[in-house]
Amino acid sequence: MANVSKKVSWSSRDEDTAQGEDTPLLNGASAVRYTRQGAVLSRPKEIPHNEKLLSLKYESLDYDNSENQLFLEEERRMSQMGFKCLEISRWVVCGLIGLLTGLIACVIDIVVENLAGFKYHVVKQNIEKFTEVGGLSITLILWAVLNSAFVLVGSVLVAFFEPIAAGSGIPQIKCYLNGVKVPRVVRLKTLMVKVGGVICSVAGGLAVGKEGPMIHSGAVVAAGVSQGRSTSLKKDFKIFEYFRRDTEKRDFVSAGAAAGVSAAFGAPVGGVLFSLEEGASFWNQMLTWRIFFASMMSTFTLNFFLSIYNEKPGDLSNPGLINFGRFDSDSVEYNLYEIPLFICMGAIGGLLGALFNVLNYWLTIFRIRYIHRPCLQVMEAMLVAAVTATVSFTMIYFSNDCQPLGPDQSEEYPLQLFCDDGEYNSMATAFFNTPERSVRSLFHNPPGSYNPLTLGMFTLSYFFLACWTYGLTVSAGVFIPSLLIGAAWGRLFGILLAAITSSGSIWADPGKYALIGAAAQLGGIVRMTLSLTVIMVEATGNVTYGLPIMLVLMTAKIVGDYFVEGLYDIHIKLHSVPFLHWEAPATSHSLTAREVMSSPVTCFSRIEKVGTIVDILSNTSTNHNGFPVVPGVGDDNEPGRICGLILRSQLIVLLKHKVFVERARSRLQQRRLQLKDFRDAYPRFPPIQSIHVSQDERECMMDLTQFMNPTPYTVPQETSLPRVFKLFRALGLRHLVVIDHENRVVGLVTRKDLARYHLGKHGLEEMQLAQT
Amino acid sequence: MANVSKKVSWSSRDEDTAQGEDTPLLNGASAVRYTRQGAVLSRPKEIPHNEKLLSLKYESLDYDNSENQLFLEEERRMSQMGFKCLEISRWVVCGLIGLLTGLIACVIDIVVENLAGFKYHVVKQNIEKFTEVGGLSITLILWAVLNSAFVLVGSVLVAFFEPIAAGSGIPQIKCYLNGVKVPRVVRLKTLMVKVGGVICSVAGGLAVGKEGPMIHSGAVVAAGVSQGRSTSLKKDFKIFEYFRRDTEKRDFVSAGAAAGVSAAFGAPVGGVLFSLEEGASFWNQMLTWRIFFASMMSTFTLNFFLSIYNEKPGDLSNPGLINFGRFDSDSVEYNLYEIPLFICMGAIGGLLGALFNVLNYWLTIFRIRYIHRPCLQVMEAMLVAAVTATVSFTMIYFSNDCQPLGPDQSEEYPLQLFCDDGEYNSMATAFFNTPERSVRSLFHNPPGSYNPLTLGMFTLSYFFLACWTYGLTVSAGVFIPSLLIGAAWGRLFGILLAAITSSGSIWADPGKYALIGAAAQLGGIVRMTLSLTVIMVEATGNVTYGLPIMLVLMTAKIVGDYFVEGLYDIHIKLHSVPFLHWEAPATSHSLTAREVMSSPVTCFSRIEKVGTIVDILSNTSTNHNGFPVVPGVGDDNEPGRICGLILRSQLIVLLKHKVFVERARSRLQQRRLQLKDFRDAYPRFPPIQSIHVSQDERECMMDLTQFMNPTPYTVPQETSLPRVFKLFRALGLRHLVVIDHENRVVGLVTRKDLARYHLGKHGLEEMQLAQT
Repeated sequence: MANVSKKVSWSSRDEDTAQGEDTPLLNGASAVRYTRQGAVLSRPKEIPHNEKLLSLKYESLDYDNSENQLFLEEERRMSQMGFKCLEISRWVVCGLIGLLTGLIACVIDIVVENLAGFKYHVVKQNIEKFTEVGGLSITLILWAVLNSAFVLVGSVLVAFFEPIAAGSGIPQIKCYLNGVKVPRVVRLKTLMVKVGGVICSVAGGLAVGKEGPMIHSGAVVAAGVSQGRSTSLKKDFKIFEYFRRDTEKRDFVSAGAAAGVSAAFGAPVGGVLFSLEEGASFWNQMLTWRIFFASMMSTFTLNFFLSIYNEKPGDLSNPGLINFGRFDSDSVEYNLYEIPLFICMGAIGGLLGALFNVLNYWLTIFRIRYIHRPCLQVMEAMLVAAVTATVSFTMIYFSNDCQPLGPDQSEEYPLQLFCDDGEYNSMATAFFNTPERSVRSLFHNPPGSYNPLTLGMFTLSYFFLACWTYGLTVSAGVFIPSLLIGAAWGRLFGILLAAITSSGSIWADPGKYALIGAAAQLGGIVRMTLSLTVIMVEATGNVTYGLPIMLVLMTAKIVGDYFVEGLYDIHIKLHSVPFLHWEAPATSHSLTAREVMSSPVTCFSRIEKVGTIVDILSNTSTNHNGFPVVPGVGDDNEPGRICGLILRSQLIVLLKHKVFVERARSRLQQRRLQLKDFRDAYPRFPPIQSIHVSQDERECMMDLTQFMNPTPYTVPQETSLPRVFKLFRALGLRHLVVIDHENRVVGLVTRKDLARYHLGKHGLEEMQLAQT
Repeated sequence: MANVSKKVSWSSRDEDTAQGEDTPLLNGASAVRYTRQGAVLSRPKEIPHNEKLLSLKYESLDYDNSENQLFLEEERRMSQMGFKCLEISRWVVCGLIGLLTGLIACVIDIVVENLAGFKYHVVKQNIEKFTEVGGLSITLILWAVLNSAFVLVGSVLVAFFEPIAAGSGIPQIKCYLNGVKVPRVVRLKTLMVKVGGVICSVAGGLAVGKEGPMIHSGAVVAAGVSQGRSTSLKKDFKIFEYFRRDTEKRDFVSAGAAAGVSAAFGAPVGGVLFSLEEGASFWNQMLTWRIFFASMMSTFTLNFFLSIYNEKPGDLSNPGLINFGRFDSDSVEYNLYEIPLFICMGAIGGLLGALFNVLNYWLTIFRIRYIHRPCLQVMEAMLVAAVTATVSFTMIYFSNDCQPLGPDQSEEYPLQLFCDDGEYNSMATAFFNTPERSVRSLFHNPPGSYNPLTLGMFTLSYFFLACWTYGLTVSAGVFIPSLLIGAAWGRLFGILLAAITSSGSIWADPGKYALIGAAAQLGGIVRMTLSLTVIMVEATGNVTYGLPIMLVLMTAKIVGDYFVEGLYDIHIKLHSVPFLHWEAPATSHSLTAREVMSSPVTCFSRIEKVGTIVDILSNTSTNHNGFPVVPGVGDDNEPGRICGLILRSQLIVLLKHKVFVERARSRLQQRRLQLKDFRDAYPRFPPIQSIHVSQDERECMMDLTQFMNPTPYTVPQETSLPRVFKLFRALGLRHLVVIDHENRVVGLVTRKDLARYHLGKHGLEEMQLAQT
């Protein structure tokens, strides 16, 4: 597939935090890497967007505590009561995360409702005005302009202020939970842009949903609340300082993502499962409960405030942003002989999903090549908005599917258009509505509400619109469009089935097939199974369909995986993220740590010269982040033996606080640092260039003993790759030291060394590493 | 609390597999252990049943692959296709597990239905016969005798044939998934006794359910199917040989447990969550899907066969053994102001649960002390059966709560007794029924079906009956009795609420409160949250109550945990099982591997004399299971440096196959073993005593190089306990080698070394280890 190298949003604006890569190569500026085959792979110098490359741009998160002396002293000082308080504050934070995520969802929902309501109202009046007298082209222009205007605001926000807020944010959160630091992904500004952007793009009538972005929003809320401060607002509340490290923060971000799912779909259990399926590797019961609590709070808050907004306080019937409506128990029964049909629909969903993903893949490649300037991105978004309006209008205009208005007036904006009085245009219920409402109509409208041609046309046009829309520079999710496409062809499937069998009564309810179709299509695109099943079950409020939905999702996944990966994985690969999958490739037992590791390794002595440290940290060609510590020259131990591991971030803090002694005073009266100093600097450690070290200071010595992690995890160099992988993945490591028989450092394994290997068509393949 | 030391079922019949303990002490027969405080703790010689002791009886499972040369060679030889086939056979095995578990559930259900139906029919006729003429005492005797007869069969099966089949089996499966080898727990014979036992005890009218045992049954099925052979039946199908090791087997047992839950409650997602909550530490996406598949298959099979049995083929409305009936959407709405009430009920559930657990704890202590002979156990079970019948009869007899027979005849066995014609005795719907049906009646019978006094009396008597029953030597679960107790007081709560508020209409549906009460009581006893929420939601077929059930379960857990642990944990502790919790005690950072580890360690040389190996393995006072391997005298490496780890089981296989060379031929032409030889011996490795080694052979040498694991996980001795714990738990290790700075073996950490530490009331406490 194409090898593209241009700038793109994920990593294009990441100058301020750049600390470089984890790989500890010391080959200097020529940056040549010998792989185990001995081939010389030169590193492309531009940002690669190719699934055969791994970018060195992305730093890793460290889910292993650095258990240095300071940390241990603090832990030992803490009483049992202290730990209880910590536990309570974890619960408080999770409660807050749920509360705030629910509130954000509530705000998005209400604003979107009103803006979209306003828009549809205006257009509807206009249509009614011009239907009789002719001149509907004016309506079309009005509609297109309104849509484009909304989208203009949304895409300008994203393209110019915070490109990382584009899309649903789910791939980014997946990466974060996997342990990859995607720059700026959990910042307050990102949240602001995301919320504004998603409101504009949904109100702008794009084929998008507001559900995916909720997951990202929840994660940002979690990352913010749990730190007890905002760097952007320069406000430190001096609380939750204990949580200022990757390990704790990750747990809260999991909770935030779960709260987001919960708010989006009214699915608290589904949210927990989503977090676990996408992120967690080490499952911890207490953590799961906290995540669950956050999810619960989030859906409850949303529910509560929406019930007040809808003037039915106390009626908790709006569990999520999307409301599929209740399926009554009577109408939802299914029978054994329908199961093959469901499986068949799953296969269709898998095929259509794969098609969607392939088309979107090529589109993304095209975008990376040609549409990489913000103003072009904004123009494309506006174009899509206008085209969406035009297609919708054309479809409605040429449709002659008139249905009688029911007594219950279930349609929000029934368009009469050229229908008789007391009838409405059925195509308009699908197009002239927010996608959520369209899905609900497809699920619940009585049999006969749509004719097959309407549904067929709608599926076809919406499929391409949604495919074009995903990846635009707007904040928006792909869940709802997928559901809508699936619901449309699913309902079509049900209608055709009823027509073929002609017995009628058994296949009476096309809404059932709409639901199954929606699940199949969504499963075919995103390829989640367990969490998606639970989300669908919770969102429909009925467990009867649990089994069919599972079967459908599994089939869709198996069929889809045969052709291409899931949409999120495609986008992660296109950004060359060093993503660690669940297990090492099956056939990788032939590799050992010796072949996988990076070597030689830059090590520091236990007592190291400040000048050396500054020089190594400043070396832009290597940019190491973790350094094994070995005994110094005068030390008792044999040289080369591992005695600790110190991180770039720790060294930066030490340098910033001038924690060193003059060479003359041989034994350490150096300034004593607190853990607090490290926590205050977390997570935006200054770059080494910003720290001034004078020539005198360069001659001083720094004692690393109490700051390094004295017990880093190590593996012997004969360890097989799957074994290394398991240790690395299960413990969420960032650096794994490889030692020889005498405990001497021989190499260092980092995320990229493991993520490089993957199973291709011709067995084990190795990806190239690319300098940014 | 009491310190009791008598024999009890869990471990009393474990002579054949005894390979002893993991702890590598070499202190000889005096078995004295120095703890870090320097106190000498002598080991009691009897089986301890005290939660302050850890038994050395239990072996650990090894969830870390021994990646020796044989294994690596096999893996490297295998093609990508081979791995695909393996993956497919994993799916096939999971499918089979689900199928068989579903079938077993089906058989249990049908047999119980018929036996209980027969019994109630006979008793009912008898009652009707004697109600008019007097002489109901004959009925009582008939009832009591029938009950006792059933229970006699059930408890004889358990007490004399397989004591491990007693109870629900959930604690045992928890232990297995945690990594503790509970002897005989996954054998075919256990399954047979379990199925027979549960049928008898439910048909015998005890206050028990048939759901808990399904989890155990599923686990046994999984352990059997996945190995492709039955040692009990001496039948080897020569398939699935790759799965013959702890790592793979554990995954399948997880799937089996999930399938069991799924069959029991019709809750496939709940089953997956149960397995994960109780067992898994390392979450793997593919594994989760397979577990999900097994769950799905299981509920589907049960459903399908029950639909045939009920002569409605194809109607999939019986997802689980228990059928709570559908809550219609209209009747189940709840309101915001009811939430405090729900939480209040959760607290009541927590209190009552704690009371239940404390009473059962004392009862268990009493049983261990005085009722440890099988015939006494059988007699106790029969006594309980007779008392249950008597109490039920008395309650029904003295109750004068008559209700009119509804037109729908919803009661299966309506007892008229002293009521007028067209009326039935309301107490009898609770007592004169299988507990599952009683729960359903409490949930769904219309308001007014029960009067408060009936419910109060029923709750009180059933509470004590259930408490007395749990722990009897019969196969039975505590889920259904807990639900029944809770449903009764929940419904009472609802009725009283309606009476107090007098407005009537809002609190109209006491069935809702019955459901909440049931959840609260069950949560208060077993203390599960996430999985139980999902199970309840799936079993009731309605997600509306998701949030209230969650809140209730959380409250019940918090309140209950304040007083005493969950019922399963109590029983695990009473058996002194070295159970590893999720995290190390919070205040344990002050301990390091040096203080925790066992030392000195018995090491073998890479090329070791057979006599030495036999002697060490035969040393009954130590009974080590894992031995670090160090270079021999003539080796290049410095002595003492770790170069591998070998297991007792591997050495046994080597000795059995006489894999050694005479001393004369200095370099190794020793027989070549295959991985197959180890797999054939798994998991019942013969004891060392059964292997005859002649005096000549004792002088031979054995080269361990290709059989040992050359890259065991190691930690430096300064590593803090939480760090050691995390590594050990996350990777499911059995032995963790502690090394010094020069890579020399200084100690070995095993499960007991970590499980010993727990947070007591006065901070960190250390449990004593007790020789069996």
